[in-house]
Amino acid sequence: MSERPVYETALGASSRETITLLGHDLARDVMGTVGFGELAYWLATQRRPTPGQTRLFEAVLAALADHGFTPTAIVTRLTYLSAPDSVQGALAAGLLGGGSRFLGVTEDCGRFLHAALVRAAADGPLPAGDDDAGWDALARAAVTAEHDARRRIPGLGHHVHKDGDPRTPRLQHIAAEEDLVGPHLALFTAIGRVAPEVLGKTLPLNGAGTCGAVLADLGLPLELLRGFALLARTAGLIGQLAEELRHPVANDVFLAVDLNNRSVAPDPLPEQQL
Amino acid sequence: MSERPVYETALGASSRETITLLGHDLARDVMGTVGFGELAYWLATQRRPTPGQTRLFEAVLAALADHGFTPTAIVTRLTYLSAPDSVQGALAAGLLGGGSRFLGVTEDCGRFLHAALVRAAADGPLPAGDDDAGWDALARAAVTAEHDARRRIPGLGHHVHKDGDPRTPRLQHIAAEEDLVGPHLALFTAIGRVAPEVLGKTLPLNGAGTCGAVLADLGLPLELLRGFALLARTAGLIGQLAEELRHPVANDVFLAVDLNNRSVAPDPLPEQQL
Amino acid sequence: MSERPVYETALGASSRETITLLGHDLARDVMGTVGFGELAYWLATQRRPTPGQTRLFEAVLAALADHGFTPTAIVTRLTYLSAPDSVQGALAAGLLGGGSRFLGVTEDCGRFLHAALVRAAADGPLPAGDDDAGWDALARAAVTAEHDARRRIPGLGHHVHKDGDPRTPRLQHIAAEEDLVGPHLALFTAIGRVAPEVLGKTLPLNGAGTCGAVLADLGLPLELLRGFALLARTAGLIGQLAEELRHPVANDVFLAVDLNNRSVAPDPLPEQQL
Amino acid sequence: MSERPVYETALGASSRETITLLGHDLARDVMGTVGFGELAYWLATQRRPTPGQTRLFEAVLAALADHGFTPTAIVTRLTYLSAPDSVQGALAAGLLGGGSRFLGVTEDCGRFLHAALVRAAADGPLPAGDDDAGWDALARAAVTAEHDARRRIPGLGHHVHKDGDPRTPRLQHIAAEEDLVGPHLALFTAIGRVAPEVLGKTLPLNGAGTCGAVLADLGLPLELLRGFALLARTAGLIGQLAEELRHPVANDVFLAVDLNNRSVAPDPLPEQQL
Repeated sequence: MSERPVYETALGASSRETITLLGHDLARDVMGTVGFGELAYWLATQRRPTPGQTRLFEAVLAALADHGFTPTAIVTRLTYLSAPDSVQGALAAGLLGGGSRFLGVTEDCGRFLHAALVRAAADGPLPAGDDDAGWDALARAAVTAEHDARRRIPGLGHHVHKDGDPRTPRLQHIAAEEDLVGPHLALFTAIGRVAPEVLGKTLPLNGAGTCGAVLADLGLPLELLRGFALLARTAGLIGQLAEELRHPVANDVFLAVDLNNRSVAPDPLPEQQL
Repeated sequence: MSERPVYETALGASSRETITLLGHDLARDVMGTVGFGELAYWLATQRRPTPGQTRLFEAVLAALADHGFTPTAIVTRLTYLSAPDSVQGALAAGLLGGGSRFLGVTEDCGRFLHAALVRAAADGPLPAGDDDAGWDALARAAVTAEHDARRRIPGLGHHVHKDGDPRTPRLQHIAAEEDLVGPHLALFTAIGRVAPEVLGKTLPLNGAGTCGAVLADLGLPLELLRGFALLARTAGLIGQLAEELRHPVANDVFLAVDLNNRSVAPDPLPEQQL
Repeated sequence: MSERPVYETALGASSRETITLLGHDLARDVMGTVGFGELAYWLATQRRPTPGQTRLFEAVLAALADHGFTPTAIVTRLTYLSAPDSVQGALAAGLLGGGSRFLGVTEDCGRFLHAALVRAAADGPLPAGDDDAGWDALARAAVTAEHDARRRIPGLGHHVHKDGDPRTPRLQHIAAEEDLVGPHLALFTAIGRVAPEVLGKTLPLNGAGTCGAVLADLGLPLELLRGFALLARTAGLIGQLAEELRHPVANDVFLAVDLNNRSVAPDPLPEQQL
Repeated sequence: MSERPVYETALGASSRETITLLGHDLARDVMGTVGFGELAYWLATQRRPTPGQTRLFEAVLAALADHGFTPTAIVTRLTYLSAPDSVQGALAAGLLGGGSRFLGVTEDCGRFLHAALVRAAADGPLPAGDDDAGWDALARAAVTAEHDARRRIPGLGHHVHKDGDPRTPRLQHIAAEEDLVGPHLALFTAIGRVAPEVLGKTLPLNGAGTCGAVLADLGLPLELLRGFALLARTAGLIGQLAEELRHPVANDVFLAVDLNNRSVAPDPLPEQQL
């Protein structure tokens, strides 16, 4: 008979008398002492953040928590209308919209910057933090490569904030205040400077992309950057449900679609699609 | 033609130049200033919490964030194993376990206490905060009613922490430090005192139930108490995924089930179930 | 060391050479022979349905598959708009609306009828299939009890088909054709006859409720009646996605909400909700 | 004021008296007449399948419905254990595992074959159905290209059925019986013939991949091939829940993990990941 597997974890554990989390006594050392943003960071990295890292991380979460009637917010409200017995279902449904298009920019941008930095680091040391010309050169290469491949640069452009996303300078400012401008944000900021000359048009660095740069600089796992956008959004979706409970709109949204539908004839797919 | 509907919200809104959240300028007044727990509370109540309320709320979130290899954690890890392309799917799947059994105690306890308080308040003023005898009388009535109806009292008992859940005294202590012991927690604490004499056995007040009492005292929407457990758990599940990425166990869990299955003959349901 | 657990199942199993399902050779005896509705029934009951049972079951699935722009359909389309990389997420999000309000009538009605039958069977034999007077007496008692308790009778009434839901007589007809009218449908049909005199108004037996009566008569698990509505709806939601791919509406739905939102001042919840 | 949007659909629609689906009277022309597999196909393509197409499609659904204790099955059972109030949540959680790894082969294979056929068709007419040498030439080119790019060929190989997946010859046989072998299946079959010489080892054509070839030949939307695997799996997951209700294993699975966990020290991520 084969060995029975043992499952190791450094997260929550409990015995009859105690509960530990990340190797600390939960009740004595975590509750009442560790803020929720700090804890989320700690859980994701198994490394306790500094106050500055926590502040910057929480600024990112605030930037991503709620953007009004996004598809995710509408979905959560409609699902709650349809299944009010299951708050968990309404929240989960909203989070499922957190994919490539609406919440994915944060992750895409973080990964894009990281890949560019890894390539650059293979060729030699990265520029010093204040070497704008060095960062501009890297940025120019990265933007040109994407442009030549006819790919969009993640984090560049915003359909509403065409003259600048107010979250971007704020995050840059907080990162500088906390002495936490790392290579990802340095490169992203440089992309903002050089993109107009390469692309022939000026596009703002959007807030979601800046969040990705900041999260990557904070040493959070690149594979899960989207997860932090989802964590922030969970708080926002609870806010959406709380508002829906008192000032409902979901039924109006549903009726506005249902009362304006028009039945049309089927449009058959061909048998053979080649 | 009927009036076109307008959808009102006090949450996120944006114009070309600005983004507001809860009526405040997001970049200037929220990011870098408002912690994530504080923001979640604010979004849910549209009322900015005091520092004491924030500390107590974040202590609750810490208490609920991660309990090791719970079904929700296993589900998130297995879903990620099966569909690593969709972090949002893995998190959503884990949250869907946040129903009546594993994460529901918090909400059930808050609602139970609230209903008892509403009934008591209909008969006259509630006891003063330090009137232990008064609270004990209310608690005795509430526990006796449940016991007579052969219903379990939400928040009473724990399958591991049989001699006491360490989170309970910690939350009571923090609530007292912040001068935030309200009627829900006062009643719940009294239930802990009187339950042994009514039930004939001593059961601890568990931490999840205490969290429900505290959240209700904090004025958070009763219909969404489960939502705060889910918010806390989202941070925990991201921690589970981060650990799974580096020290995977999901495939071992899967194989431990799959390699130990035994095929048995079907057990047909009868045609007629009356 | 404790015994290693073994997990038993009568469903799918495989060895190096063969795959079995429900004790049959999947490739040889199931594929190409067993229709999908038949298989779904078989999997749920571990009992192979007769052709008549299959026909009636598939008529129920057809009745529930798609109702146009329901909240579930809108949710699936919006989630796909937001996260087109995850078809599973879009389908799952839509199914999460299958709770108490929109898809729950089927289950609620089946359970209500079953409870009434169990109570009646405790008092003596149920009426014969063609004993209309006997069924009417049972129905009158059941409707009166709900009416007196100010509860709504599941399956009674429809917000659009006020003069009768066309699915109801069709299901009654098919059940009769297949000689499969059981006690649940007999009671439900009798409820349609007696409800006007008890309630003082005429409400149609809706199709979703009739589906619940039929599914219960088919011997399907009462705890999972909602699951069959969800199975039917999965086919419908795939149809919604297929149409969305070719004739998209989700972005218009999103914009119709987003462009007509109005930012209002926060409405703070009181600190103390008693 | 802008034009109010109108949302068009060829799927479900209803008026006070009638319900239509795909342009047909639901009660009169669909219920009792159209099987569930046939309906699912019709909804996805807006084209009614022939009996042969329906049989082949339902054979695919049978092939994919349940594979025993897969991660999706375990997830559905664990979620139901944790939140038994929400059948929709348990099913949705299971479906969320239907991503790239466990249920994705069907879609990946269909897309891979289709891309190869589109490339080949750009160079000239595709081989006739019985021109094995012609298909082998195409297959050799496709396999060689993947092999040279060090990519795996979707649908090739199986971790259990190393000598051949019994579903594959069965699907090939049914497709031939119904005269429905199209270019995707012809190419996939040829890949099975030529792969050993190109790769230097013999790998079986697995059933999930064959399903993808067949679904593509049936003219179903390539973007949604995964959706049909999910539809089949929904029936399987209902079977899993029905079995769990009567012969539960989820709590044993949970305990087998929870009782064998070992708390280890945190493994901090570095601050800087470059």
